[in-house]
Amino acid sequence: MADQKRVLITGASGLIGGVLRDAFVEQYTLSGVDIRPASGLESLVADMNDLEAVRPAFEGVDTVVDLAAVPSQFSPWSVVYENNIPSTYNTLEASRAAGVKRVIFASSNHATGMYETDHPYSAIVEGRYEGLDPLAIPYITTEMPVRPDGPYGIAKVFGEATGRYFSDQYGLSVLCLRIGTLNPESLPTNPRQFATLLTHRDLAHLVERCVEASDDLRFAIFYGVSNNKWRFWDISNARELVGYTPRDDAEAWR
Amino acid sequence: MADQKRVLITGASGLIGGVLRDAFVEQYTLSGVDIRPASGLESLVADMNDLEAVRPAFEGVDTVVDLAAVPSQFSPWSVVYENNIPSTYNTLEASRAAGVKRVIFASSNHATGMYETDHPYSAIVEGRYEGLDPLAIPYITTEMPVRPDGPYGIAKVFGEATGRYFSDQYGLSVLCLRIGTLNPESLPTNPRQFATLLTHRDLAHLVERCVEASDDLRFAIFYGVSNNKWRFWDISNARELVGYTPRDDAEAWR
Repeated sequence: MADQKRVLITGASGLIGGVLRDAFVEQYTLSGVDIRPASGLESLVADMNDLEAVRPAFEGVDTVVDLAAVPSQFSPWSVVYENNIPSTYNTLEASRAAGVKRVIFASSNHATGMYETDHPYSAIVEGRYEGLDPLAIPYITTEMPVRPDGPYGIAKVFGEATGRYFSDQYGLSVLCLRIGTLNPESLPTNPRQFATLLTHRDLAHLVERCVEASDDLRFAIFYGVSNNKWRFWDISNARELVGYTPRDDAEAWR
Repeated sequence: MADQKRVLITGASGLIGGVLRDAFVEQYTLSGVDIRPASGLESLVADMNDLEAVRPAFEGVDTVVDLAAVPSQFSPWSVVYENNIPSTYNTLEASRAAGVKRVIFASSNHATGMYETDHPYSAIVEGRYEGLDPLAIPYITTEMPVRPDGPYGIAKVFGEATGRYFSDQYGLSVLCLRIGTLNPESLPTNPRQFATLLTHRDLAHLVERCVEASDDLRFAIFYGVSNNKWRFWDISNARELVGYTPRDDAEAWR
C-alpha cells in the first residue's frame, strides 16, 4: 500500500529478521539487506561493512531496524572490531545520508550483562529463588552505568553512543533495544531465560511500538524482555514512552 | 629507586605526556611507548595499533597512563576507527596480559560534549554570563548519559566501556579521566576555557592521585578540570574517591 511505512531490516536473514518479517509483512512495506539472501521480502545482498555497497538499500526508507551483526555473544574482539562495530556505524551513516527518519538499533542485554555476577541476579539466572521475592527485585535500569560482559556487549555500548551522537548531531531518531533472550522456540530453555526471555510476539510488539512512536522521540534505550515473573530489567520507560505492554511471562512454561 | 612505582605512558611524546614526564620524572620510574621517540624517558617506538609490537613495553609495569590516540577532537570516523579504537583496546589487553595493576585512561570531555548545546552550558562556553550564578550551575556528572560530540568522543565512550569490562572480567583497575581543555599555555585562551581549563599542575595532581589511589578502587570515571569559577563538570567523586583537590581557577587569568 502506498501509505504504508517503508521499513528496512538490516541482517534480515537472521532469526530476529524472520520474526519481524512474519509479523510485519502486511503492515509495512518491508525490505532487507544482508550478506545472505533473506526469504519473503525484497532484499539487497551486500555486506553492511561496505558502506557504498549498502547505500542503495536505504533510499526511500522511513525506518531502519538494525539487526546486522555477528550474533554470537562470545565473538572475540577481532571479529567484533571487523564486523559489528563498522556495521553499526555504517547503518547510522547510511540512514543519515538517505534521510531515514528513525533507526531502531538492536542493542543487547550484554551491554549490561556483568550485573548478573551480582546478587540477586546471579541467583536468579541459575534458578535459585530461595529467599527472593519476585516483586522486590531491584531492577537494572537503562539509567545505570553500562557493564558489558564481553566484546559483543562493548560493541552494543558503542552502538548506543553512536546512535546518541547521530540523534544529537543530525536529528536522526534512534531507539536502542537491549534485547533479552530471543530463541527459535520462543519459550524458556534454561533457568536464566525464565528471567530474560523475549517471546517472538513481545519482540514484534516492541518493535512495532518503536516504529509507530512519535517523531518527537529522538533517543531512548529500552530493555526488550517479556513480562516475566523473574524479570530483572526495568521496562517502565518503554511502557511510558512507546506503550510497550508485553503479554507473555516465561513462567507460563514452567 | 627500586621501590618507585613503574609507570608506563602510552602516547608519551604528546603534550600531556610531556607534562606528566616533567611532573613525575623523580617520583616514578617512567617509561613510554609512542610512534615517535619521546624525550626524557625510556621509550619504545612502536604503534599501539600493533599489539604484538607493543607488548614488551608493558612487562613489569605497575600502572599505565593511556594517552595514545589521534588527538584531534575533529578526527573523522575512518581515522578514529583505524587508530583510536584499536589503540585503546590494545592498551587494556596488553596491560591485562602483562599483569599491570591499573590503567589510567585518558578519556575526554568530548564523551559528553553535546550537553554544551543546552542551556546554561551553551551560554557559558561563549562567555555569556548574564543572569547566571556560577554557584548554581547544574553540574554535568559522570552518572549522566553519555552524549559524545563526534567520532573522537564516541571512541572515548568505547574506551570507558571497555575499561569497565576489563575491570569486571579480569580485575584490572581502570580509572577514566574525562580531561577538559589542556593546552600548551596552561591558561584560558578562549571563552570556553574559562569553564573547561585543566592546568598542567592540576592534571599532574589528578594523575598522581589516581596512581596512588587504593587498590580497592576498581573502576571510576572522573572529570579532569581545574576548579574554575565557571566549571560545569562535577568533580565531587574525584575529590571523594582519590582526593583530587585542584588548585587553579581559570578566572585568575581573566
